Amino acid sequence: MEKIFQDGITASCPLPITEHSTVQLGHGSGGKMMNDLISRLFLWAFDNPVLNQMDDHAALDISGTKLAFSTDSFVVDPLFFPGGDIGDLAVNGTINDIAMSGAKPLFLSAGFILEEGFSLTDLKRIVVSMQRAAKEAGVVIVTGDTKVVDKGKGDKVFINTAGIGLIEHNFSISAQAIQPGDAVILSGTLADHGIAILSQREGLSFETTVKSDTAALHSLVSEMLSAGGTAVHALRDPTRGGLAATLNEFAASAGVGIRLDEQRIPVTPAVAGACEMLGIDPLHVANEGKLVAIVAREKAESVLKAMRQNPLGQHSVIIGDVITDSPGMVSMQTKLGAWRIVDMLVGEQLPRIC
Amino acid sequence: MEKIFQDGITASCPLPITEHSTVQLGHGSGGKMMNDLISRLFLWAFDNPVLNQMDDHAALDISGTKLAFSTDSFVVDPLFFPGGDIGDLAVNGTINDIAMSGAKPLFLSAGFILEEGFSLTDLKRIVVSMQRAAKEAGVVIVTGDTKVVDKGKGDKVFINTAGIGLIEHNFSISAQAIQPGDAVILSGTLADHGIAILSQREGLSFETTVKSDTAALHSLVSEMLSAGGTAVHALRDPTRGGLAATLNEFAASAGVGIRLDEQRIPVTPAVAGACEMLGIDPLHVANEGKLVAIVAREKAESVLKAMRQNPLGQHSVIIGDVITDSPGMVSMQTKLGAWRIVDMLVGEQLPRIC
Repeated sequence: MEKIFQDGITASCPLPITEHSTVQLGHGSGGKMMNDLISRLFLWAFDNPVLNQMDDHAALDISGTKLAFSTDSFVVDPLFFPGGDIGDLAVNGTINDIAMSGAKPLFLSAGFILEEGFSLTDLKRIVVSMQRAAKEAGVVIVTGDTKVVDKGKGDKVFINTAGIGLIEHNFSISAQAIQPGDAVILSGTLADHGIAILSQREGLSFETTVKSDTAALHSLVSEMLSAGGTAVHALRDPTRGGLAATLNEFAASAGVGIRLDEQRIPVTPAVAGACEMLGIDPLHVANEGKLVAIVAREKAESVLKAMRQNPLGQHSVIIGDVITDSPGMVSMQTKLGAWRIVDMLVGEQLPRIC
Repeated sequence: MEKIFQDGITASCPLPITEHSTVQLGHGSGGKMMNDLISRLFLWAFDNPVLNQMDDHAALDISGTKLAFSTDSFVVDPLFFPGGDIGDLAVNGTINDIAMSGAKPLFLSAGFILEEGFSLTDLKRIVVSMQRAAKEAGVVIVTGDTKVVDKGKGDKVFINTAGIGLIEHNFSISAQAIQPGDAVILSGTLADHGIAILSQREGLSFETTVKSDTAALHSLVSEMLSAGGTAVHALRDPTRGGLAATLNEFAASAGVGIRLDEQRIPVTPAVAGACEMLGIDPLHVANEGKLVAIVAREKAESVLKAMRQNPLGQHSVIIGDVITDSPGMVSMQTKLGAWRIVDMLVGEQLPRIC
């Protein structure tokens, strides 16, 4: 711990940033290594109350207008996969980060990093997919940027989207609002996106094609808020790191325990089969069109009912509850009746999933 | 021209997108090839009044609050160069895009695409540089994202920043406001950034080290608006493509001619020498801390005076004027008294300059 800069910036640095001296794939995993890098480098350097909330969006007040602001870069490989492509993923992903604040997504930016030699036909296909996703979601892509890097210094195309949404409600939807007794609701089947990417990448084929669940969830959220109001305590889309990462973050932030019932967690037979074959836990696999909601118990059934009326939430279920015991820990009763701890992954299981 | 999609999206496509079938370095140049890609692909697909303005920012009205929103990805090579690094460049670049609308920049997002194996010490140096630039400019980095790509699929680090600023004035600063008779003001010496990068990259050394001019220009803009008000018709920071690209875009958008006096355009001896040696025209080289203003003639001297009182504008000069003749064209009287046309580059002269 030492001051290394002399320009008024607090620079007592918690070095080493991690136990590694170089970037590892695990630093992009959504798991412990990524959290470590974020808190020990980015939060340390950029330290401010908004960022320190560690939400996937920033809640801002500009001249009395309450906005949600978020960004995501997309580096998924392959670019095209069953159910979607990097284009609709980039639009839906940022919409979802904004939607999880309860905001209405309005505007997106789009930044492209193109590799020299990348097919313009593929680029067009991706851009048309973004156009369609934006139109479907009712958001407008209002500003952008294009950079080109020399061949071998990128990988076809990376897309960054940032988005702005309008927060129209007057309460805070955040991990801090989670209370013991709350219900944990999942909006549908787990692990579809990650397994779709992995199957495509590895050339695996199953009896049924597993499709990515990429979708914009803001309408679902809006209907949940109409049904549940302030009873909707926390919302998040379990992308990288999967449901396990999201719930562990919730448990840690709120200082509560979370208890799941494996039997109630929906996984399609094709995904369950793929996970078993590959030795992957569906709780750790990325989703791109699902959300987890933590809702006050007395409103849980009405929120669930509203969710099931939306095609994107038709398989919604209560999968567990929030408890006072074992704060910071997520546990699950397995189908066989035993209890296990659901931990966050340390490093990378499936790189470049989004 | 054919309808290829059946989901209500107008998809009569102006194919071929360009005369190439793959992405070329020139598509990121800031010149004609990039403009072509943007208008024939991105504007065609995302078609909306805000984007179609073709400004470096989007001017938005959200519940009566007027905002500027902009994004830029940074892929500069090398990461560290005399006068700056990719970190302060990423902060200042997006601030400047916002500032050119006359807005006060408030919040930034930061998206990192890291290559596996990149030095965490270098990453920290970059992040600290972003911290410092943000602090100096009075903006807050409120949200972010980290992705990691496998070794050989990226190049150390790419950074995307998006930003939000508050527009407090009630007039439009845009190319459309340019009038014949207006003065063209440049805020200082040309081509410092591009030549600094190129010298570092090629291992060139000159008697004087050429430093990048990377700087946040929003305070300079604010002082210009105080002095000139609605007389400040258009503002832009001449980055990729240089002064030549900016003025050609202005001339085309406003349907006017622009006439420059080479003798008045400030270039340091070191930069002039480097440009001569390398056969590069400083009018085509990127700047990262300069702006061009088109100002009504009657207020030009007061705006100039205000600019010169700011350290970032101390070398400001009137370099030319707007004329009715030769609409869409930029011409320049050379030091020898002859007239030449100042054209936009077609392709790429200096790749990965920002």
